[in-house]
Amino acid sequence: MAAFAALWESLLPIGRDPVTGGYHRIAWSEPELRCRAWFTHEAERRDLTVERDGNGNLFAWWVEGRGQAVLTGSHFDSVPGGGAFDGPLGIVSAFAALDLLRAEGYRPAHPIGIAAFAEEEGSRFGISCLGSRLLSGEIDPDRARVLADAEGVTFAEAVTADLGPGALDAFRIGRDDALLGRIGCFVELHVEQGRALDVPVGVAGAIWPHGRWRLDFAGRGDHAGSTRLEDRHDPMQPFGHAVIAAREAAERHGARATIGRVNTVPGGTNVIASHVTAWLDARGPGDEVVRATVAEIRERVSLAAAFHGVEFGLTPESYTPLVDFDPDLRKRMLAALGGVPVLPTAAGHDAGILAARLPTAMLFVRNPTGVSHAPEEHVTEEDCMAGVAALAAVLRDLAGA
Amino acid sequence: MAAFAALWESLLPIGRDPVTGGYHRIAWSEPELRCRAWFTHEAERRDLTVERDGNGNLFAWWVEGRGQAVLTGSHFDSVPGGGAFDGPLGIVSAFAALDLLRAEGYRPAHPIGIAAFAEEEGSRFGISCLGSRLLSGEIDPDRARVLADAEGVTFAEAVTADLGPGALDAFRIGRDDALLGRIGCFVELHVEQGRALDVPVGVAGAIWPHGRWRLDFAGRGDHAGSTRLEDRHDPMQPFGHAVIAAREAAERHGARATIGRVNTVPGGTNVIASHVTAWLDARGPGDEVVRATVAEIRERVSLAAAFHGVEFGLTPESYTPLVDFDPDLRKRMLAALGGVPVLPTAAGHDAGILAARLPTAMLFVRNPTGVSHAPEEHVTEEDCMAGVAALAAVLRDLAGA
Repeated sequence: MAAFAALWESLLPIGRDPVTGGYHRIAWSEPELRCRAWFTHEAERRDLTVERDGNGNLFAWWVEGRGQAVLTGSHFDSVPGGGAFDGPLGIVSAFAALDLLRAEGYRPAHPIGIAAFAEEEGSRFGISCLGSRLLSGEIDPDRARVLADAEGVTFAEAVTADLGPGALDAFRIGRDDALLGRIGCFVELHVEQGRALDVPVGVAGAIWPHGRWRLDFAGRGDHAGSTRLEDRHDPMQPFGHAVIAAREAAERHGARATIGRVNTVPGGTNVIASHVTAWLDARGPGDEVVRATVAEIRERVSLAAAFHGVEFGLTPESYTPLVDFDPDLRKRMLAALGGVPVLPTAAGHDAGILAARLPTAMLFVRNPTGVSHAPEEHVTEEDCMAGVAALAAVLRDLAGA
Repeated sequence: MAAFAALWESLLPIGRDPVTGGYHRIAWSEPELRCRAWFTHEAERRDLTVERDGNGNLFAWWVEGRGQAVLTGSHFDSVPGGGAFDGPLGIVSAFAALDLLRAEGYRPAHPIGIAAFAEEEGSRFGISCLGSRLLSGEIDPDRARVLADAEGVTFAEAVTADLGPGALDAFRIGRDDALLGRIGCFVELHVEQGRALDVPVGVAGAIWPHGRWRLDFAGRGDHAGSTRLEDRHDPMQPFGHAVIAAREAAERHGARATIGRVNTVPGGTNVIASHVTAWLDARGPGDEVVRATVAEIRERVSLAAAFHGVEFGLTPESYTPLVDFDPDLRKRMLAALGGVPVLPTAAGHDAGILAARLPTAMLFVRNPTGVSHAPEEHVTEEDCMAGVAALAAVLRDLAGA
């Protein structure tokens, strides 16, 4: 299994911040495009057929046997400053599992595919799982085309501008039933992102419902020295209350709520801000819990905004209801793996989006510290190898012989 | 007095955001350098001698009479998205007052100078009144050279890179006693920045003590979905408390405290931030009030940070104690103007910095809405003309005949 380590290390330097060790593989950025080139190179070395679909997703097909394919894989893109494993582990493990099966002389009865889905984190255009949402028809292509990044570059502009492996025709994005019809099931291997797994490998139960909301506060820009407190319309004040309300509402309802991103305009030290924009991420074990958490935050922040004479708006940007993966596929994987644990996840995944169109399932690999979306995210080499072995066993079972 | 309006309008388009109407005349940016070129052009048209000192400040001298000069003027640079009047009104009024005196056939017994001081707002390098601080020796040149802007460009690099009217030798910045020795007094005309003036013109009493502090919160970046609330070290939480504590402490102590600028790292929607950095601006009628306000904020935020397992540091970046302007100069101005009001100001000014070296004074012009540091900042044309007339009367009195 030295092959896994060599493969892993060949990807590792791409997009890594030399100071923090965090990864910046933002969708359609130079590092993420280099990851795609790495994918194509590894696929061609293995005589796999590379396919770029119309939505920015990459596939490498082992064209063997007949009927619908068994698909595995994950994503390359990271959150800003994220860890090495979230996403890439599923792709590298897929190549390694395929090598293992071939070394054993295995030939599948159905094709096997490896996927790299685009913009899973939503770090650039604000919608998570954008590639799989487009493929499965979960987002209107007209809406996707005009999504803009922090610099104002739209999705349509970004994918058209690229001349390499990320190039797309922005007018032809959207649901692809022909491609979906060639896939029998999708099994995504992913690093576990909490501390829920105390053995090397587990199988996903369900994905918690989760969503993103934008908070807009409009006040009045003014001089920080000469404006009396009672004359202010300071949007930072209700924003401060939003941060605290998010935490307290999540505690009360047994949910998770996070504000990790905020912009202030104009952003001067001696200037009362005129506008504050922030983003709320909320998740919970059920739709009702998430709804109640967000409703409480909205109510508390509205009161604070009214008190400070600030206009406040809360706009939903994306929402994914509870996703339970295919029970039959899960049962079959548990039989193939022999008694590994089943665990829910609070993180969204492409497998959750594709579950609306295909039987999907997930394999989780242990995360000893529970840290994710940060440079400290880690999986031991032993557990990586256990993940590859489990994925190989599942593919062998699903693709037949 | 149509001359004032024409002069004012010739400067008005430079650095104005066509959408918001706010000004972006950041020190050593292209718009601010265009303002300097405007200054040189207007000075040369009037046969004034232009002098660029070693600290980025500009002077236009009416070399006439003998002895120490009477200096007036203000600054061009703005806060991001600031108003048109804060700074430039003092420079344009100075040229207009000089035109008025000359039209009356006046010839001064002492030289008269017009100054444009650099980086008064501190919007680029974080230290307000940087040009006058360097000139008067209020800041160590070694410290100034390494001050960095948001892009990491240092003051030394920025002033060396410029080849036009902002060019400086960064190795020769610092206190200039020869230049200071040529100036008898400095009178700065400025838009009033609150609602303290209900007649067109007033004279400054004192400048409130004011300072800036940096708040650094270091937590742990983590996944917004899968990290349990009790496992988080979320620096946004104590930041939220800081926003609220600043307002409440200012209310309790009769001070003003503002947080208008914040950065989060990494700044992703589905990522718990690892670091939050923010800036606090605090001012009050006395040093003790400011000290007590900041101490209370520090204490409350330290508690919140400890509760959330986040490291917190509060670093002073600049502090200017209470400045009372020269009483004799003020008395003489009040006599020349005949019974205008005397008012304190909560905003810092170059005249406050230079007060440590020279007799200084300020003339305020009425601000009907009290809004400043924002596009809505306004002075009526009538009040502008009253300001010019008052400044001309003061210059005539101080420069003798």
